[in-house]
Amino acid sequence: MNQTINTQLAHRTIREFTSEPVNKETLDRLFEVAIHAPTSLGMQNASIIHVTDQRLKDELAKIGAQAYVAKAPVYLLFIVDTRRNSLIAGGPSAAPYPRNFISGFTDACLMAQNVCVAAESLGLGINFLGNVHNDAQAVIDLLQLPGLTFPVVGMTLGWPNQDPQLKPRLPRHARVMENGYVDLKAEDLAQYDEAMQTYYDLRDANRRVDSFTDQVKAKFSPVKDLRDATLEIAKRQGFDL
Amino acid sequence: MNQTINTQLAHRTIREFTSEPVNKETLDRLFEVAIHAPTSLGMQNASIIHVTDQRLKDELAKIGAQAYVAKAPVYLLFIVDTRRNSLIAGGPSAAPYPRNFISGFTDACLMAQNVCVAAESLGLGINFLGNVHNDAQAVIDLLQLPGLTFPVVGMTLGWPNQDPQLKPRLPRHARVMENGYVDLKAEDLAQYDEAMQTYYDLRDANRRVDSFTDQVKAKFSPVKDLRDATLEIAKRQGFDL
Repeated sequence: MNQTINTQLAHRTIREFTSEPVNKETLDRLFEVAIHAPTSLGMQNASIIHVTDQRLKDELAKIGAQAYVAKAPVYLLFIVDTRRNSLIAGGPSAAPYPRNFISGFTDACLMAQNVCVAAESLGLGINFLGNVHNDAQAVIDLLQLPGLTFPVVGMTLGWPNQDPQLKPRLPRHARVMENGYVDLKAEDLAQYDEAMQTYYDLRDANRRVDSFTDQVKAKFSPVKDLRDATLEIAKRQGFDL
Repeated sequence: MNQTINTQLAHRTIREFTSEPVNKETLDRLFEVAIHAPTSLGMQNASIIHVTDQRLKDELAKIGAQAYVAKAPVYLLFIVDTRRNSLIAGGPSAAPYPRNFISGFTDACLMAQNVCVAAESLGLGINFLGNVHNDAQAVIDLLQLPGLTFPVVGMTLGWPNQDPQLKPRLPRHARVMENGYVDLKAEDLAQYDEAMQTYYDLRDANRRVDSFTDQVKAKFSPVKDLRDATLEIAKRQGFDL
């Protein structure tokens, strides 16, 4: 083992931060790490919006339906950004194609995870926010994101003010397969359901967490919702998907 | 600084590996890091296909049009995997919606970057392979990926047998913006074009690299290609996008 891997294995979502700010020097390091993340074909089709305006953070917390987001010292939004290269290539409508959207989306995620690992290596805690897709159009409007940009994932970070348990994961052999796909075995699911029920989620310390099976049934509900409009909203941003 | 951040700032793509294999213990560590990556709502909608069969690696190298891929000691394919949870939730057609595709795509990228950082912290080198989208259908057919799974990004890794230069990046202030989008300044592009031309790409040591502007013009060509079929192929895999 080494310190990097120990940090990675200790990843937990941190939702509550102390009031200590994250200083500029630390943020600059994290942003330096962000821009050194791998990027498809060297195109750097992703950017970060660092949201420092409290009014915007309040609105993002409302869109995300997670009030604690507004109190986080740092809010970062990782975005697909093919606008920059489209302008370089000759105009805002140059190649708004799936290949560039996909590469920008991938680049944004790689940047985000690079920032996560760097932040955690410094003792900071982070919270990924998929909730920007609750209403991607509202995020776009709020931050006035121009065409050919698109929100991918948000992140809050700060100095941890809580010490949550490690969340159990599906077993390694269920997620890493050799040479082809293998379905999850019933006994692995049963064991994982049991492991999950020994885990106490700090969001509601008074009750045990549902089994994984019950969590999946709730999240994979057959009802479409506003999050399913994400790709339609991307089309409105000019992507020819 | 710390060792983790130093590793991240030193990221370079490694395409040529020594013949030394990556042992099982090391791979198991990397896979452990993979499954501990952050995951949206705890759903773990992503998996890894570890390709060990040389015939499959040869075919993946052909699809990716990069012969050196076949010689890499380790080939990993990161996939969207909402099949697992759809079966748990009650059947292969449960909720094949954009929200789950997006969360699986994001999860797969976060896993991949976590593996990248862990591998580099151990002295390994990696190469991300967006070339699985050259023909995602061929990758699906080759590895017999079932419905509701989808290739996101490939990765080769091994012990480096080359020592490439750090590739210059756009300046930090051009990629990290405060409270809203800011267009790239002409002088930043000019400086970056110049920096890029001092960089020698090991793929072709005999000639200087094109300016960034010229690279972008080549990559953002207005001609659609097979990579633009990616989302159509995802629909064939059962995703209701």
